[in-house]
Amino acid sequence: MLKTSILAIGDEILIGQIVNTNSQRIAEIVTAVGCKVVKISTIGDEHTNIIKELDDLLNISDLLIITGGLGPTHDDITKQVLCDYVSDTLVENAEWMQKLIKQFEHRNIPLVPCNREQALIPSRSQLLFNRIGTAPGMLIEHKGKHIISTPGVPQETIAIMNEVALPIISEFAKNSKSEAVIYKNFRTSGVPESVLADMLAEVDLKFLDKSSMAYLPNFAGVKLRIGAYGSTYAEAEKEMERISSKVIQLVGKHIICEGEESFASVLGKLLKSSNKTLAVAESCTGGLLGGEITSVAGSSAFFLGGMLTYSNEIKIHNLGVKPETINKFGAVSRECAEEMAARVREKFRADYGISITGIAGPDGGTDEKPVGTVWIGIADSNGVTAEMKNCGNAREMVRDRTIQTAIVMLINKLRLSLNKGK
Amino acid sequence: MLKTSILAIGDEILIGQIVNTNSQRIAEIVTAVGCKVVKISTIGDEHTNIIKELDDLLNISDLLIITGGLGPTHDDITKQVLCDYVSDTLVENAEWMQKLIKQFEHRNIPLVPCNREQALIPSRSQLLFNRIGTAPGMLIEHKGKHIISTPGVPQETIAIMNEVALPIISEFAKNSKSEAVIYKNFRTSGVPESVLADMLAEVDLKFLDKSSMAYLPNFAGVKLRIGAYGSTYAEAEKEMERISSKVIQLVGKHIICEGEESFASVLGKLLKSSNKTLAVAESCTGGLLGGEITSVAGSSAFFLGGMLTYSNEIKIHNLGVKPETINKFGAVSRECAEEMAARVREKFRADYGISITGIAGPDGGTDEKPVGTVWIGIADSNGVTAEMKNCGNAREMVRDRTIQTAIVMLINKLRLSLNKGK
Repeated sequence: MLKTSILAIGDEILIGQIVNTNSQRIAEIVTAVGCKVVKISTIGDEHTNIIKELDDLLNISDLLIITGGLGPTHDDITKQVLCDYVSDTLVENAEWMQKLIKQFEHRNIPLVPCNREQALIPSRSQLLFNRIGTAPGMLIEHKGKHIISTPGVPQETIAIMNEVALPIISEFAKNSKSEAVIYKNFRTSGVPESVLADMLAEVDLKFLDKSSMAYLPNFAGVKLRIGAYGSTYAEAEKEMERISSKVIQLVGKHIICEGEESFASVLGKLLKSSNKTLAVAESCTGGLLGGEITSVAGSSAFFLGGMLTYSNEIKIHNLGVKPETINKFGAVSRECAEEMAARVREKFRADYGISITGIAGPDGGTDEKPVGTVWIGIADSNGVTAEMKNCGNAREMVRDRTIQTAIVMLINKLRLSLNKGK
Repeated sequence: MLKTSILAIGDEILIGQIVNTNSQRIAEIVTAVGCKVVKISTIGDEHTNIIKELDDLLNISDLLIITGGLGPTHDDITKQVLCDYVSDTLVENAEWMQKLIKQFEHRNIPLVPCNREQALIPSRSQLLFNRIGTAPGMLIEHKGKHIISTPGVPQETIAIMNEVALPIISEFAKNSKSEAVIYKNFRTSGVPESVLADMLAEVDLKFLDKSSMAYLPNFAGVKLRIGAYGSTYAEAEKEMERISSKVIQLVGKHIICEGEESFASVLGKLLKSSNKTLAVAESCTGGLLGGEITSVAGSSAFFLGGMLTYSNEIKIHNLGVKPETINKFGAVSRECAEEMAARVREKFRADYGISITGIAGPDGGTDEKPVGTVWIGIADSNGVTAEMKNCGNAREMVRDRTIQTAIVMLINKLRLSLNKGK
């Protein structure tokens, strides 16, 4: 396996101001393609310390991935230190300079010297394109080993890793002549970890040997992670195929998607392929459902819009929920959720209407309807149904769980009708 | 300052299965009492690697805090390795054994051997009481330096750190050289990192000496972190005052808030205190603005709701934008943004209406209106205005930057009218 180290550079991590999510995401990404992360470390923006750390980490690994310290300001010194370490010189990358000039013109911001410096990269390095920010990533070969450097802004790190670095790293991993472990995730929803484990007992007992299976619960469901072992990369791929097909056979109907695909993306594909449209009516989630659904590029093909009916008055006057409904059953009720879904579907002339009304907290909970009580309604041409869910007790958790649950409910409804259609 | 290192032990971190929040919390906790965290590292449960890492980290620090590897299972070897490293032997701690016996009786669980082993600690170590779990923390002195070991379960790590270890660490910190560094953040918006750096060049050059200033950019703006140094804590506070006031003098008008407060929270307080209400009309952000505004607990006091008008037809039929407006100027135009803000304000009977219409990409851009072109409108009793912003080129960035920009626009408007009011 390709021995890999991850180095995060930044004082903000050392003082505990930010959580080092970059290292976790990078570890997850490279592990999935067969790298073995042997060490993750974090140090400050200090020249001699960085040099020493580069040396230590390259001693124990074939690939070193650095994140952070590529910004335009004085406290960012990674690039210069890296250049010194491999005894190279910084040269201007014409392509990147053009991108910077365009980007700053486009945003009407002056291109000051410290920005121009972002087009400088070590002469022997390969530029790794950064779709989002102004600092490019870099790949440098040094004494038969490889160093990848990415900016510290999480969105940029992840974009560069997934879109540019990953194919290169996969090649490194494939070419490393030794045993391999590759990973694959199945994202399930609607079944508790323990039940899933029972359903998969056979795999656990008969299929794993040196391979592994882990259950990772999160607010959206349980992520099932398979680690397939092989004496070579090809063997590991065969083993993954063998285990995966058994897993799909046993719990396939609970699997929403593979890998890191979002539930919103799955829903989007289903709506697109079945040529159906969607509108939403949100109360306690305040727009997060619409926001998540439209996180998918091209969502205008199926998402028409929706109504944020945070106050009861808006639910009544603007959406058309009957006052009696709210007076009699309350805003957080099956009746209100059903009317909200039906009304938004009508008003927006959509094929499907989803509604959310609940208590996100911290206030507003009662013994009868505690914080986390959420009603989710779905309306289509056949009518409307609503389900009550308890989505936890912390405001952010309730809101996240609620929108993911709503998305899964519609995914299952669409898959059902597609199967009927067959 | 007390040089401190943090070592997390666990394969689940190396494969990216979990985010290493323990190290962040520990760093935050010890930094607050005057420790200087010089390095954070993560390695697997492997004897020789752990020994080497203990050596390396104790070489550069006075205090080493270890988290993880104290569980009852065989893969947890931290305690034994630690014992070997300081050439000590494990002895049963009677007090802890009593606690275990009581705890397991109480839960009606048999106390199996691997649990009994949790009462074993190095003979020269001091037990750090763990209120929550079955593995105690430990404090060991070694060659004039100190090693603290805590279990990896976050709640237990944090409980031991805050309740038992912190007083001890504070003493260490006080007794070490009495110099101090304290930190403060200013969250700015509307100026790129590079421009901000130019505006603050004077501080960088003349004000810092041993103090520091760092720029942490994100989609919401740039976070400016000041680290004020003093030979004593009181000196550091004076220094912070001196630097802060200069920073406020130079870039004050771009500072939205201090610390970690979100812009949405700042807006919420302003609306609440001025007793005003808000409604939103979102196109390309699809609900993210409403979602962000309602991330603030108690937002029902000022947020009425809004309309997600993703399609033009919805903009026209449901929100009331004139067809001519869209035909003549397009949906992404000043005219459309102004009508959207005005209509949603009327329809929802709100004091303020915010509208967003733009091109989030990846598709839909033109030379005239490239991806990232966003119009943001604000309507109030005095009428409506709209501004064109370019919010970047990657979909997720455009959407995040757009909602933060819209929130800042209303914050500035509210602050202006409050000042006029004075």
